[in-house]
Amino acid sequence: MPELRKNIITREWVVIATERGKRPSDFKKATAAAKTDEQKAEEVKKCPFCPGNENQTPPEIFSYRLSGIAKNGAWEIRAIPNKFAALQPDGNLDHKEVGIFDVLNGIGYSDVIIETPGHFERFPFLPKSHIEKVIKAYQERYLQLRDKPHVEHVIIFRNHGEKAGTSLQHPHSQIIATPVMPKEFWFEVEGAANYFEYEEKCAVCAVLDFESTAGDRVVWENDSFLAFTFFASRYPFETRIVPKAHKASFSDMTPYEGGDLAEIIKEVLSRLYNCLDDPSYNLTLHSLLKPGKYEESYHWHFQILPRLTTPAGFELGTGMFINVTAPEEAAKFLREAKSFADIAG
Amino acid sequence: MPELRKNIITREWVVIATERGKRPSDFKKATAAAKTDEQKAEEVKKCPFCPGNENQTPPEIFSYRLSGIAKNGAWEIRAIPNKFAALQPDGNLDHKEVGIFDVLNGIGYSDVIIETPGHFERFPFLPKSHIEKVIKAYQERYLQLRDKPHVEHVIIFRNHGEKAGTSLQHPHSQIIATPVMPKEFWFEVEGAANYFEYEEKCAVCAVLDFESTAGDRVVWENDSFLAFTFFASRYPFETRIVPKAHKASFSDMTPYEGGDLAEIIKEVLSRLYNCLDDPSYNLTLHSLLKPGKYEESYHWHFQILPRLTTPAGFELGTGMFINVTAPEEAAKFLREAKSFADIAG
Repeated sequence: MPELRKNIITREWVVIATERGKRPSDFKKATAAAKTDEQKAEEVKKCPFCPGNENQTPPEIFSYRLSGIAKNGAWEIRAIPNKFAALQPDGNLDHKEVGIFDVLNGIGYSDVIIETPGHFERFPFLPKSHIEKVIKAYQERYLQLRDKPHVEHVIIFRNHGEKAGTSLQHPHSQIIATPVMPKEFWFEVEGAANYFEYEEKCAVCAVLDFESTAGDRVVWENDSFLAFTFFASRYPFETRIVPKAHKASFSDMTPYEGGDLAEIIKEVLSRLYNCLDDPSYNLTLHSLLKPGKYEESYHWHFQILPRLTTPAGFELGTGMFINVTAPEEAAKFLREAKSFADIAG
Repeated sequence: MPELRKNIITREWVVIATERGKRPSDFKKATAAAKTDEQKAEEVKKCPFCPGNENQTPPEIFSYRLSGIAKNGAWEIRAIPNKFAALQPDGNLDHKEVGIFDVLNGIGYSDVIIETPGHFERFPFLPKSHIEKVIKAYQERYLQLRDKPHVEHVIIFRNHGEKAGTSLQHPHSQIIATPVMPKEFWFEVEGAANYFEYEEKCAVCAVLDFESTAGDRVVWENDSFLAFTFFASRYPFETRIVPKAHKASFSDMTPYEGGDLAEIIKEVLSRLYNCLDDPSYNLTLHSLLKPGKYEESYHWHFQILPRLTTPAGFELGTGMFINVTAPEEAAKFLREAKSFADIAG
């Protein structure tokens, strides 16, 4: 059973999940030579996310299927529990004290959305209509997890590329539900609430106004969303995709907004792909599951964090970031980059 | 001039330092093929940290020299300003507002401690007596920066290996003085103060007691310091080196403690080297420059953060970490690993 341990000073919770049994030699392997073509082919054959290998994953939570038989198998999108789960749904938190520290059982959900049957597909190349279904799957699972016991927060994210923490080629996203409120996300919620109290408006709505007017950080825009590089970006080419309608939760995104979200994600990710030669990135959802008193002050959105530089001692020791690319420059490059909207809309 | 920009929600400051002019093509280069032996040899010849190339660095701040002529040149340790400084000493903060955002000039100090004349030396292989001098240089520069205008915080850190954000082979550490208090460090200071208020003791002193008694996370110990893997480690093999005497600032470390610190850093880093096959890591100082009312509640120390895994969407989107190695296991491996104390004491 994974374990949650609380830092007595910062009060942050850490998940100790040793199920994969990391010994020193496992870390050494991680730096081994690149795989041969043969090894890669073998890997594809064994890929648990590929059609035909469905029995290698835990039983699926849900799937979206074509009415007929599709070229690559009958399903288009599958939601499954992660076989290597950081958190597990069965059991109780069993709060205990180990000396001066607090410990909880690692109760929660750790799911995978397999985004397409195609092992070698690239997310921004998928048709907009398909990305729209992926987003629908995100929201469907988000709503399911909202009503589970012990769930305090749900994050949806997509890791692309080795520098973003994934080595799995088959396109997929992850959804993790935690039994505690993560510290840094909570500071964001509280920070927005403080801004609201002081300025009498939502901070993200204020940023939307500011960026629409300034224009030089805008990457793409449609009816429902604005995509822009963030004024105080921690990462080079860090981009926000923010709904124009003020809502605290991704739960409340409308189907029309879902379509616009698919379009703008495709636009931004394909420009990132072309501008930076398929960089590693993390796409992360920032949303309140149950907004309560934060309904007016919090504003859900997605963040795209390209992994072009490596945070080092300064960043890890202070929490402060050095960004080598001005957000205005990054936005200009992204605006000028090619998109895949035309070729696979 | 680099710029500091404040996030209106989290209130964290970000350094936008574009002096190196990162365009998309610069990031592409970073993922180019490994260097040839010839390129490496050329690089060594041009290394600005090597004896003979002193004129390639900005004028030195201070150096420690042998009384005679040493084999590799007359200096043993050099403190210099970083040629590619993230922050620059000259000028004023010039606080201004850009729409809804706060902006400061990037005033501060960005220094390098060249730890040895030997380009190919490895830090944990250096004699303890030499590491002691490196630590003395840390403290000397720390004390100098304490009295400079606009300096709110000083961090000393050592990046080792590509995954820890450095590609420079020549052994060196960095010292950065910031004109604002970094958010995450400040949460640590405030968290410790809250603990002190509630428990009427220093949180780090409480951890020292807890770890000495438990024993299973202890890696090494001497008169003045305890080294242990942290109970709520965010990173696999994350290790703290903590002075037993309660002090809020590295400024107040005694020369005797400096000797013990050199010994324990050598012990821990050499065990890490042997246990994990020379892993990338960041060594970071956590210390209050001017403790003031936090004298009793804050406790300075070093953290060693091995970079064995890659934080991904979950970590970046929540601030919560998943650690795949139990700290107790990590400590056991480090205790059992060989050290270099005998061969180069």
